[in-house]
Amino acid sequence: MSVRAGIVVTGTEVLTGRIADRNGPWVSQSLLDLGVDVAHITICGDRPDDLTAQLKFLADVGVDLIITSGGLGPTADDLTVATVAEFCGLELRLDVEIQAHITTIIERWRRNSGRSAGGAALAAGIRKQAMIPAGAQAIPPVGTAPGVAIAASSGRPAVLILPGPPGELQGMWESAVATAPVAAVLADSGDYRTETLRAYRLSEPDLAESLRIAQGSVAGFAELEITTCLRGGEVEVVTRFLSDDAAAYAALVEFLTKAHGRQIFSSDGSTIDEVLIARLDGRTVATAESCTGGLIAARLTDRPGSSAYFLGGVAAYANEVKTRILGVPAELIVAHGAVSEEVAEAMADGAREHLGTDAAVSTTGIAGPDGGSDRKPVGTVCFGISIAGQPTSTTTLVFPGNRATVRALATTAAMHLLSEAMDG
Amino acid sequence: MSVRAGIVVTGTEVLTGRIADRNGPWVSQSLLDLGVDVAHITICGDRPDDLTAQLKFLADVGVDLIITSGGLGPTADDLTVATVAEFCGLELRLDVEIQAHITTIIERWRRNSGRSAGGAALAAGIRKQAMIPAGAQAIPPVGTAPGVAIAASSGRPAVLILPGPPGELQGMWESAVATAPVAAVLADSGDYRTETLRAYRLSEPDLAESLRIAQGSVAGFAELEITTCLRGGEVEVVTRFLSDDAAAYAALVEFLTKAHGRQIFSSDGSTIDEVLIARLDGRTVATAESCTGGLIAARLTDRPGSSAYFLGGVAAYANEVKTRILGVPAELIVAHGAVSEEVAEAMADGAREHLGTDAAVSTTGIAGPDGGSDRKPVGTVCFGISIAGQPTSTTTLVFPGNRATVRALATTAAMHLLSEAMDG
Repeated sequence: MSVRAGIVVTGTEVLTGRIADRNGPWVSQSLLDLGVDVAHITICGDRPDDLTAQLKFLADVGVDLIITSGGLGPTADDLTVATVAEFCGLELRLDVEIQAHITTIIERWRRNSGRSAGGAALAAGIRKQAMIPAGAQAIPPVGTAPGVAIAASSGRPAVLILPGPPGELQGMWESAVATAPVAAVLADSGDYRTETLRAYRLSEPDLAESLRIAQGSVAGFAELEITTCLRGGEVEVVTRFLSDDAAAYAALVEFLTKAHGRQIFSSDGSTIDEVLIARLDGRTVATAESCTGGLIAARLTDRPGSSAYFLGGVAAYANEVKTRILGVPAELIVAHGAVSEEVAEAMADGAREHLGTDAAVSTTGIAGPDGGSDRKPVGTVCFGISIAGQPTSTTTLVFPGNRATVRALATTAAMHLLSEAMDG
Repeated sequence: MSVRAGIVVTGTEVLTGRIADRNGPWVSQSLLDLGVDVAHITICGDRPDDLTAQLKFLADVGVDLIITSGGLGPTADDLTVATVAEFCGLELRLDVEIQAHITTIIERWRRNSGRSAGGAALAAGIRKQAMIPAGAQAIPPVGTAPGVAIAASSGRPAVLILPGPPGELQGMWESAVATAPVAAVLADSGDYRTETLRAYRLSEPDLAESLRIAQGSVAGFAELEITTCLRGGEVEVVTRFLSDDAAAYAALVEFLTKAHGRQIFSSDGSTIDEVLIARLDGRTVATAESCTGGLIAARLTDRPGSSAYFLGGVAAYANEVKTRILGVPAELIVAHGAVSEEVAEAMADGAREHLGTDAAVSTTGIAGPDGGSDRKPVGTVCFGISIAGQPTSTTTLVFPGNRATVRALATTAAMHLLSEAMDG
């Protein structure tokens, strides 16, 4: 591995576990895609001494690039730029161009939200955010905080400073890696590719056994850096390799497709959401959710342009709502219980009919922690898939874990069931 | 701060961002509760050299306790115990008691799942997991991997080794902190308390200004360790202090309440979800969501027992669904546009009426990236709140950020608007 990087995540709220860090994992994956190997991720609070210690540690272990996230706000406890500048031995200077840029963004936002122009405190905050280490390159903000790229110098690694809000950090990523200081580091990285296979209903042990066999039968297997990961009910096989070893990867994909073709739903990196949307192919869909309570609808409306295929959904939590809005006969609920394939079928049919779509998916289950029984334990979820011109299908799955896990796994299962139904 | 700790999270799948770490945040919060200040969290892959570098870093910065998670499995790439032992200069020895204990657990599990007794590979794995550094204390496993506690020694911090699966780590926590090596460190920690204030519609600069004034007017302010954090449109003020300084914290709360009482919605750590549920006080609620597409319903069904107040919701994405299911007049949509307070009002009223609840909240807006105009830019969201016996209220807010941010901020805003309406 030629280029190694370290990631420093700053923020007392992350260090103390009050908010989950989303930047470390995202930056790590993005660096891997660029052929850079992440050696360390470190998290520190808003204390300059701790941040300095981590920067020094990463420089001492010899990483080529340090990427920091967070601590770029307008207030006094946001100290990343000043701390990094001191670590690099660089003075801070006002970047008037960036200062004007931030001012424009903030004034536009205040106007749109009907606020008056900002006062002295606001101007001081903007000025603080526009202080850039001498010789460093400012990266225009997506929110209001600019990033900073500092070139490597005499044994000290290059440093890329990015903001904490994940939307801002991700929005600035492309321009950040294109800056001269970062591009100079990336120029030394190998020509790596990362490819992902995704499977559903494939167990990790079965996959491990297949990989063991592949080791002996796939030419060039040793050149492939394969990691497998169980995530939200799906198994991901992520393989990293030099472009020169693409034939070995193609042979691995062929081998795994032969063994698990029915379970593999994606070999081009696409998610189940993307696969489903492609399969809908212009058809419209509705949801009828009990235990998932809106999670499937929220997921189907995640993407820009979702109004092309998602018309609407009903979170039918109470039985009366199932009856009133979806037309599920009250007698059916009495006869079979709300958590039953019969009710799931009626919910899906009702959603498709009343919302006027080509297809509908329904869930009714026991997310827990209460409400389970011997016959229907916590984690039991019944699904219905209603498609115009086809008999409505139902299925029951039992998911492990707590309430949040059951709801998340049921949502993913609904995406897969709908996707499979739209395919055949 | 008397006792400082560092947390080392191991695992290539965490370092590369393929799975999110849950142990760092959990251990950090648990240590804070014990009066221990976490200075650093570091994440490394399954490479002994990187782990050793992180252990050395934490020892060098002078933490009193290092806690590691992960790398305790039976296979060869699980190297945490051996690496820590070498770092501490301790030999590994077979702990026959622990070996027998793991064997019992595994044989019982194999019997229960109908498998035959394990072979030589299994025995080797158990033996590997039962190798404990000389003089260290083994912590009986919850899964199959025992933990290890190593006492501090001549400038080297105490080390607590815990397994990676969060359920196992958390299950072993109490016995782990009770071991002599860890208890000796904890004996030096102070009697700290952590309290949280939460506010909505309070800007960070305004809060910073208040805290600046409080510094001069609140007696004992200097004894309070205050961090502020903007999170999903809310501002959190988290304060840590020795129990002896409780009067200073009370004075700070009084000061901030005087300055921002209308914005502060929680001073006992409760979230807006908890505040809203308490204010509902038995009343039922429905949702009618366009741009948030089910996120509010999903959030209202997040908690156990939510069926007591949430009856159902409609994700009314297409205009026909707004008309068909919620009874929003088509002419109203034509006259004012789908994103209008008039439509938001009709959606909220329609949801309350058709779903038969005491209250309803609606959203209709432009989440983006497309669909914005000069008059209604991306981020514009209209809300309606319908409560039995009260005139329906509407409001329009403009949120910054990308599609996901706008949807998340609108969901939080809906929770606050509904909560405020249920209060008055």
